[in-house]
Amino acid sequence: MACCQLIPSFGDLAANRDLTASAVAEAAAAGASVVVLPELISSGYVFESREEARACAQPSDGETVRLWTRLAAHHQVVIVAGFCEVTADGELYNSAALADPTGLRGVYRKAHLWDAERLWFTPGSDAPPVVTTRFGRIAVMICYDLEFPEWVRLPALDGAQLLCAPVNWPAYSRPAGERAAEVIRVQADAGVNRMFIAACDRDGIERGVGWIGGSVIVDADGWPLAGPLEPTGSGAMITAACKLDDALSKAVSPLSDMHADRRPGLYRRVAE
Amino acid sequence: MACCQLIPSFGDLAANRDLTASAVAEAAAAGASVVVLPELISSGYVFESREEARACAQPSDGETVRLWTRLAAHHQVVIVAGFCEVTADGELYNSAALADPTGLRGVYRKAHLWDAERLWFTPGSDAPPVVTTRFGRIAVMICYDLEFPEWVRLPALDGAQLLCAPVNWPAYSRPAGERAAEVIRVQADAGVNRMFIAACDRDGIERGVGWIGGSVIVDADGWPLAGPLEPTGSGAMITAACKLDDALSKAVSPLSDMHADRRPGLYRRVAE
Repeated sequence: MACCQLIPSFGDLAANRDLTASAVAEAAAAGASVVVLPELISSGYVFESREEARACAQPSDGETVRLWTRLAAHHQVVIVAGFCEVTADGELYNSAALADPTGLRGVYRKAHLWDAERLWFTPGSDAPPVVTTRFGRIAVMICYDLEFPEWVRLPALDGAQLLCAPVNWPAYSRPAGERAAEVIRVQADAGVNRMFIAACDRDGIERGVGWIGGSVIVDADGWPLAGPLEPTGSGAMITAACKLDDALSKAVSPLSDMHADRRPGLYRRVAE
Repeated sequence: MACCQLIPSFGDLAANRDLTASAVAEAAAAGASVVVLPELISSGYVFESREEARACAQPSDGETVRLWTRLAAHHQVVIVAGFCEVTADGELYNSAALADPTGLRGVYRKAHLWDAERLWFTPGSDAPPVVTTRFGRIAVMICYDLEFPEWVRLPALDGAQLLCAPVNWPAYSRPAGERAAEVIRVQADAGVNRMFIAACDRDGIERGVGWIGGSVIVDADGWPLAGPLEPTGSGAMITAACKLDDALSKAVSPLSDMHADRRPGLYRRVAE
């Protein structure tokens, strides 16, 4: 599988479609079966008003998602990518599409909106989709969602072997020698669920905002198979071979199983 | 605060009491206000039968916990330490006591039993206690509990500023250069809750079992303040100054808050 850490052109939907088409072609040529692109790769991220976001938004059957669906069929791959969505009734969502060679299989709307996103987007309220593809059962969530382990648990309980997460991780300072906290959380999310995770970050500088550029693919124990990257300023791709069947077993010792050992009856207050 | 990565003498309760008394004295002399000792430090870990565990078990008002309560008063510290507990009706628990200068403040019984522990211990079913001490609000859980983020969430929602976790992390091989997965999960547990965590591991070899020896104290963002240690073969202590008030705010950006941004109404299936 591949994560393409791209640099969108803010507000230029046509240029971003071309960028994603090139990236998917490159990933497919490198042998990828599953290609993850960043959050809001259709539009860029740093909106300053709801009107700006609306001007960049497209329906889930709009030109960008239709392109990704065609690319998935053409290259015979799964594509998971983020886009700025507008619905028929005018709501804006920070969304991600999952397309496979048979068509558009799912649209996920980010449930946990980061910082100013809440000023323009409506939070989604549907659980992450888990889609059965020819490569395995693949789930989708977006960026800040990954920092809510209850939310990550849902697709894992629904049988996801791989969670694909378009992200835009804003840069911040961290202690020398440390991985980004977001990467560490992805590792933990994966390990406690025995589920692969591919988080595809963006790159470049947009309206003064830099990014961690920390795209990473981790295995079902949370160990990085590729990445985490550092920002390159020009974009980058990581690829890894993932035996997704490893995620079918949650056993971690002769008598321990990360899912069967849960005590859901004791967790009630988490959902109140 | 301090974590004392000790080596218990298997089955020798008197020797282990002496060991913990020395360790608490050393930690207090080093200026610690909160001292965490390993899981099952009263007895050792590698039981081979329920009878062995029973022979090492003591009630929560037994000699070991009474010693810790006296030590807490004598040194004017909080002590969190693991012990093999037997109740009046003969149930065995993998427990931890929290004592402060005013007395025994809480006993927690491990809810998520690791591997063979389930052959001798009864799982606890009470949420981790959150105790208001003169140093802040302190919670307790034990080892494998830390790998269930729903469980870690509960004391955080209950206002814990610091989670003290006696652990016994069995050694296993991991990729070169990687921290133990358990440490990474502690970092994530802390960061997504903005809560300090002190995990105190054990050291040495017991009945052929080695340990990660990865004691670590992390801040409310999950960054290590001390440790993670490597096994030393002779025991070790880590100390860190923790401003526990940092954990009072869950804000992580102008409009984002790790607790307020939760969507508990969407997490229902986590508790089913």
